[in-house]
Amino acid sequence: MHQARGEKHWIIPDGFIPPKSAPGDYVSHESICVLNCSSEEAQLQITIFFEDREPLENISVAVAGRRTYHIRTSSLSANGASIPVGVPYAIEVLSDIPIIVQYSRLDATQAANALMSVVAYPIK
Amino acid sequence: MHQARGEKHWIIPDGFIPPKSAPGDYVSHESICVLNCSSEEAQLQITIFFEDREPLENISVAVAGRRTYHIRTSSLSANGASIPVGVPYAIEVLSDIPIIVQYSRLDATQAANALMSVVAYPIK
Amino acid sequence: MHQARGEKHWIIPDGFIPPKSAPGDYVSHESICVLNCSSEEAQLQITIFFEDREPLENISVAVAGRRTYHIRTSSLSANGASIPVGVPYAIEVLSDIPIIVQYSRLDATQAANALMSVVAYPIK
Amino acid sequence: MHQARGEKHWIIPDGFIPPKSAPGDYVSHESICVLNCSSEEAQLQITIFFEDREPLENISVAVAGRRTYHIRTSSLSANGASIPVGVPYAIEVLSDIPIIVQYSRLDATQAANALMSVVAYPIK
Repeated sequence: MHQARGEKHWIIPDGFIPPKSAPGDYVSHESICVLNCSSEEAQLQITIFFEDREPLENISVAVAGRRTYHIRTSSLSANGASIPVGVPYAIEVLSDIPIIVQYSRLDATQAANALMSVVAYPIK
Repeated sequence: MHQARGEKHWIIPDGFIPPKSAPGDYVSHESICVLNCSSEEAQLQITIFFEDREPLENISVAVAGRRTYHIRTSSLSANGASIPVGVPYAIEVLSDIPIIVQYSRLDATQAANALMSVVAYPIK
Repeated sequence: MHQARGEKHWIIPDGFIPPKSAPGDYVSHESICVLNCSSEEAQLQITIFFEDREPLENISVAVAGRRTYHIRTSSLSANGASIPVGVPYAIEVLSDIPIIVQYSRLDATQAANALMSVVAYPIK
Repeated sequence: MHQARGEKHWIIPDGFIPPKSAPGDYVSHESICVLNCSSEEAQLQITIFFEDREPLENISVAVAGRRTYHIRTSSLSANGASIPVGVPYAIEVLSDIPIIVQYSRLDATQAANALMSVVAYPIK
């Protein structure tokens, strides 16, 4: 059995889904990249915070044991609601077992793509 | 009631507002991205440090409870003074309750944009 | 004798080797950048995690004392298996002595390159 | 008097000075961005580590009190030796008082620039 590693609570203050993509190899997207080092499945609860409206809560995602999962934020939804494009937001990830979380954005608004990435902030 | 999370004191050593933007979808900008997990409003005091002059102090910003706020640095001002473009500077964020802070820059000087982002450094 | 600094266990959740490179100065690549501050050689064991298959384990790399080593992920292999291009993965680095680890990606899929970098997450 | 904040010892494993710049607004460069929150001057000692040769040691830099300093790595030298371009290296920053350190790279090898940034790793 492999041990769980990392933390159970992670924050990413800068989320933004670029509203368009230029023609080319890539489509604009963001990923919440999770590593689950343990042998058990991890159960994640994701909350999305906005500037001007109530949070989108209780989005559930599972990450299998000894696997990574690069979650596209555009695929997340709760009660039929998903994250609008072109709007500033923030991400909270809670997990039932320790995991490690990184966030990356590929902005393909233009033919010339731009990339950014941060390790999320762990709440201990 | 939701609990405040994170830290009350954050540092970003590398600030720079690109002086120009190429025509296109984006304008060059920087954002101080804050998440306030608590149910209470957070009161922020921002200080801007320069290489060759006295700091710009006592810039006040409020972030509502259970909200994120992506603050454009070009919008900050104290006593009529704001951050000049094209000049290296650094940012200190103090908050009355714990928050989480990330900093991102979109440089649209050229038609081909560039992006960078860091989680700010927490002073504990 | 110089002392070892940093941590022995580091995680990078977002790995991805871009499948192609446009003609130009750069080829798409990722690097695991290690600094070994000590006078002794560091022995690293790297594990690669995937979304849909078993991890690639026991990849050995040595980093000489008082040296840095910027390891191209495309050069890593274990039992004849290496990391496929165009597939999301995650990286775990274990070292017998403390080191510091940063991860950077240059995406040269297009003529206009994109860069991202994070300090890896230390497990303490 | 303002108090010193941060740490006295910081590491950046991924240094690289791009060997060329395309014509345009920017020249390829890297900066070690320091914030000195205290009222006193900070005395820095920088060491540069390579993959295949002895470190470049005892590079001295001063950062004034209540100031930031964005140090171009290409400006650093010790005993007449400076950092060669196009070579992987790593950076260690020691300070006599606590400071905060971030590292950013602008790669203008191509007309389309790329940016990356990390907060340096603090040794506690």
